[in-house]
Amino acid sequence: MCCCALSVNAQVNVEPLSWWAGMHNPQLQLLVAGDNIRGHQVKLLNAQGVKLVNVEQTASPNHLFINLDLQDAKAQQLKIGLYDNDQLVEQFDYAIQAREPGARERQGFSNKDVIYLITPDRFVNGNPDNDNHPSMLEKSDRSFDGGRHGGDILGIRKALPYLHDLGVTQLWINPLLENNQDKYSYHGYSTTHFYQIDPRFGTNEEYQALVQEARSFGIGVIKDVIVNHMGSGHQWMADFPSETWVNGQQAWQQNPQDILYTSHRRTTVQDPYAVASDTADFDQGWFTDTMPDMNQTDPHMATYLIQNSIWWVEYAGLSGIREDTYSYADKAFLTHWSKAIIDEYPNFNIVGEEWTSNPITVSYWQAGKQNNDGYISYTPSMMDFPLYDTLIASLTEPEGWDTGLINLYQRLADDVVYAKPTDLVLFEGNHDTNRLYSLMKNDLGLFNIAMAYVLTSNRIPQIFYGTEVLMQSPSEGRNDGAVRGDFPGGWLQDKINAFTGEGLNNQQQATLSFMRSLLNYRKNSAAIQHGNLRHFVPKDGVYVQSRHADNETLLIIYNKNEQSVALDLQRFSSVFNGNTQGIDIINQQSYQLDAPLKLEQKGVTILSLKR
Amino acid sequence: MCCCALSVNAQVNVEPLSWWAGMHNPQLQLLVAGDNIRGHQVKLLNAQGVKLVNVEQTASPNHLFINLDLQDAKAQQLKIGLYDNDQLVEQFDYAIQAREPGARERQGFSNKDVIYLITPDRFVNGNPDNDNHPSMLEKSDRSFDGGRHGGDILGIRKALPYLHDLGVTQLWINPLLENNQDKYSYHGYSTTHFYQIDPRFGTNEEYQALVQEARSFGIGVIKDVIVNHMGSGHQWMADFPSETWVNGQQAWQQNPQDILYTSHRRTTVQDPYAVASDTADFDQGWFTDTMPDMNQTDPHMATYLIQNSIWWVEYAGLSGIREDTYSYADKAFLTHWSKAIIDEYPNFNIVGEEWTSNPITVSYWQAGKQNNDGYISYTPSMMDFPLYDTLIASLTEPEGWDTGLINLYQRLADDVVYAKPTDLVLFEGNHDTNRLYSLMKNDLGLFNIAMAYVLTSNRIPQIFYGTEVLMQSPSEGRNDGAVRGDFPGGWLQDKINAFTGEGLNNQQQATLSFMRSLLNYRKNSAAIQHGNLRHFVPKDGVYVQSRHADNETLLIIYNKNEQSVALDLQRFSSVFNGNTQGIDIINQQSYQLDAPLKLEQKGVTILSLKR
Repeated sequence: MCCCALSVNAQVNVEPLSWWAGMHNPQLQLLVAGDNIRGHQVKLLNAQGVKLVNVEQTASPNHLFINLDLQDAKAQQLKIGLYDNDQLVEQFDYAIQAREPGARERQGFSNKDVIYLITPDRFVNGNPDNDNHPSMLEKSDRSFDGGRHGGDILGIRKALPYLHDLGVTQLWINPLLENNQDKYSYHGYSTTHFYQIDPRFGTNEEYQALVQEARSFGIGVIKDVIVNHMGSGHQWMADFPSETWVNGQQAWQQNPQDILYTSHRRTTVQDPYAVASDTADFDQGWFTDTMPDMNQTDPHMATYLIQNSIWWVEYAGLSGIREDTYSYADKAFLTHWSKAIIDEYPNFNIVGEEWTSNPITVSYWQAGKQNNDGYISYTPSMMDFPLYDTLIASLTEPEGWDTGLINLYQRLADDVVYAKPTDLVLFEGNHDTNRLYSLMKNDLGLFNIAMAYVLTSNRIPQIFYGTEVLMQSPSEGRNDGAVRGDFPGGWLQDKINAFTGEGLNNQQQATLSFMRSLLNYRKNSAAIQHGNLRHFVPKDGVYVQSRHADNETLLIIYNKNEQSVALDLQRFSSVFNGNTQGIDIINQQSYQLDAPLKLEQKGVTILSLKR
Repeated sequence: MCCCALSVNAQVNVEPLSWWAGMHNPQLQLLVAGDNIRGHQVKLLNAQGVKLVNVEQTASPNHLFINLDLQDAKAQQLKIGLYDNDQLVEQFDYAIQAREPGARERQGFSNKDVIYLITPDRFVNGNPDNDNHPSMLEKSDRSFDGGRHGGDILGIRKALPYLHDLGVTQLWINPLLENNQDKYSYHGYSTTHFYQIDPRFGTNEEYQALVQEARSFGIGVIKDVIVNHMGSGHQWMADFPSETWVNGQQAWQQNPQDILYTSHRRTTVQDPYAVASDTADFDQGWFTDTMPDMNQTDPHMATYLIQNSIWWVEYAGLSGIREDTYSYADKAFLTHWSKAIIDEYPNFNIVGEEWTSNPITVSYWQAGKQNNDGYISYTPSMMDFPLYDTLIASLTEPEGWDTGLINLYQRLADDVVYAKPTDLVLFEGNHDTNRLYSLMKNDLGLFNIAMAYVLTSNRIPQIFYGTEVLMQSPSEGRNDGAVRGDFPGGWLQDKINAFTGEGLNNQQQATLSFMRSLLNYRKNSAAIQHGNLRHFVPKDGVYVQSRHADNETLLIIYNKNEQSVALDLQRFSSVFNGNTQGIDIINQQSYQLDAPLKLEQKGVTILSLKR
């Protein structure tokens, strides 16, 4: 598919790279970059039904914004001319493409899914030939845990059968866009080109092909989008499209050391008593010196970012967006951005990252929340950091009157602050948290409790690559490089291979089997996907939840005790729904509900109830 | 004033003791107790405009419920006859009185007020003659910290000039009703008679006189009401008015050891996923074996409790109710109870106790809250335990990135969960918390910060008796007897006397003076009473708030540093409102706002800004 704007004399650069006829929003703004083009007039040389609305200029001599109306446009190859005193000085083609059937109606990730997060540099090196690229500053170095290790899009593609067997139905892949930074470029959060996959990961076409092949396995792809900041290596930093493109732009231009960093005080954008200067210190500060803070209050920047998000959804065929550092962007922009995407794709899904333990703070950003200050969001989902934090704490602290499982129980009562708690994404870990198995101090019982909780909760579950084979990290502190370790079997020379099972120890094999069972069970479980949740006050280290939908009732029993427990089930009979026995969904053992259930060891028992 | 029902032959007991003509709710239900009166017919022998609606019976042979309609009644002395087969067997007078002018319009406590909590047994022994009473089981023993020490209503009355000078405008007095229990009766939370002041505190008439005299000092009185439980010494326990009067009644009757205690799991009455059995374990369990749990789902009990609350407001002339162990009562009842009181007194105030650090849980109970489950409350205020807990923790933990004042700052952002955060009552301590000075480890700087915070916050402030003279307690654990120490000067033999100042050390004198200044300043400060609040992210151990209303602007500067700090005020100029100088409201010193402000020591500086 041809998608790139072709400049007849390569003097201009146009973004978005292409667009589509028949979008919900017929407006399109082209950002044209080229030497001294500000004064140029614009004409559509070959256009059918495309209207030139107007041309906007900024203080930048090298940029133009062309506003088009595609209301009556069909797919076509536009020709656009730039004129200087009636003299054609530039001419370029611009593709208005036909949309794929069902593009607008695409289904976003949902409670039916299990999301698998991949750090692409660390998953599978499917094409060792692209580990380095002549135009990219940083070279591969697998010996350095903060360096590039060579994982790529082809690697993910090769892993699709494995992921499908595991039972995964969505892939959230850490950012794949070009990060031409001199170091730590592997994580992908320093975008230097918003329309180009980093060549060390692959090409735009390879990304498109990955999404297409994943779909054939019943797997969707979620893009990791960052609208708050970009990479300092972006060409804009040498030639800003406007005077207000980046926060703190003038100060930085005068002295690149003169950077105001974000305060990270996230309540300042919600707090009814906060002062504007504190709000600005948070949402206008830079994340790091290599991550300039984009100014979404610049209307051209806002439009650029919105169009860029939509372009990738449409181009690649995505089923979701994960929005990084959500609250750090301008909040009015976030309303427009989320609304534009959901207006374009009504069944789509977006999950935002608001990293705090406070459900009140997280709830502010979810679509449907009635905020006191009238703030409106269209982002359907948020990452459930509060529940994650409580899950980890409740399992790692000893049981007591107000410690342990009781806090996990009580945390769920806070669901009332959310517009729709079941739309939240609950995770067992991500690229910023220590590995679950390590947090659980290598206790497989606690690990299984945490995994079952995430996978059977009334949330959209998300797991982190390698959790299924007990990948480890330090258990305290922040250890990015170690957390984002290489997936075993992702490199030709690997002695341990999760894909083949070679070299996996007993615990790893058991965990892989347990997770495969649970993920695949979940695929067909109405009770887990959309069932009612009921739960019982934890007592004596045992916490029981039930999920119920249609004719399916599950009893999920978490036992945090070291020793075996004979559990009288009669206390839970109000959720039996007339059933008399339970079948363990993992090992198929059958139990009578009127007899004490022997819980042999620390861990989880999931019973599917039968008459 | 005559208020008691007179039985011609003393064979029946009637409650409420009396009622009033012209109440908003014209319905009145009399609970009549007497041997084997269930089968009796009821006639109004002398009634003008009073209608006998009907008579209700329960399984109790010794109780009757008489429903009257007072819609068209004027003040009068009713005569009611009980008949057995047309034979008059009992006859009693019942007073329908005239209301005081303005009774309905009475003003409840508000942001204009400072509430002073008194544990009456421990404040002032105004009448040593009533320390013991022949019909009361427990005798006085000042040497035992869990015993009765002799404080009483007359003592409070004698302290009114002192309290007025201090600047107090409301008294919340721990329960004064009869607690005829064999031990620990001093705290008052085990009611054995709902219509009688404990004789060791005084009489109903003395209580009425206290409220009246307090009013002449501009001081209102708030009653401590307990609708959840009563004392095991109540005569009902020997003769229940119905089969469902108390939760767990039948089991207790068969075996008094057979008590189900409350689980204290308060989220179970809000949690959308909780099961009914867990909810019952919380709200139907007994508080202790000496505190049977009243069953507010029994409609006669519900009416009894509602009428009792209203009776005391009307009888004594109260300006507020503090409702104990709020969520432990039946929640549907709490709706009816609070609605009935607010319907009767539209400007009244009620504050509920929900002892949790979670603002979501507290917010559920406040009038105006839009709860997801549709639950409605008419209780205007709740105790702000979450903010209290955060205040104490923020001052006692060291400053750090996410410790100390930053948590106090961030906690206020949670105000968005409340229907009306400014209606909450914020306290520096109460009868259940360790003493503020002790919690602050006798650090007067921290103590002053906490006091100023409570007294200048956008809340209704409440202080605990003796805090003004640095009364102490252990700083950890639960120490009821020690926390509720005797107020110095309340007993004749006391060597230290807060009323005269005799024996107070320098710190106590300074604190009394500081609090007197602040409380009295507050009385005329629109900025504190209803001003806008703005605050700044704490930096380097300094936290700044401003309050602003009309032409008054206050800058409140909290310095947690041991060493002196030169604070550049320019960061706060957005709240200067055009002013150029600040006058310290405590010592009247004047400062220019464009010069650094020298904060000499740990503590608070409150500047009133001037042009």
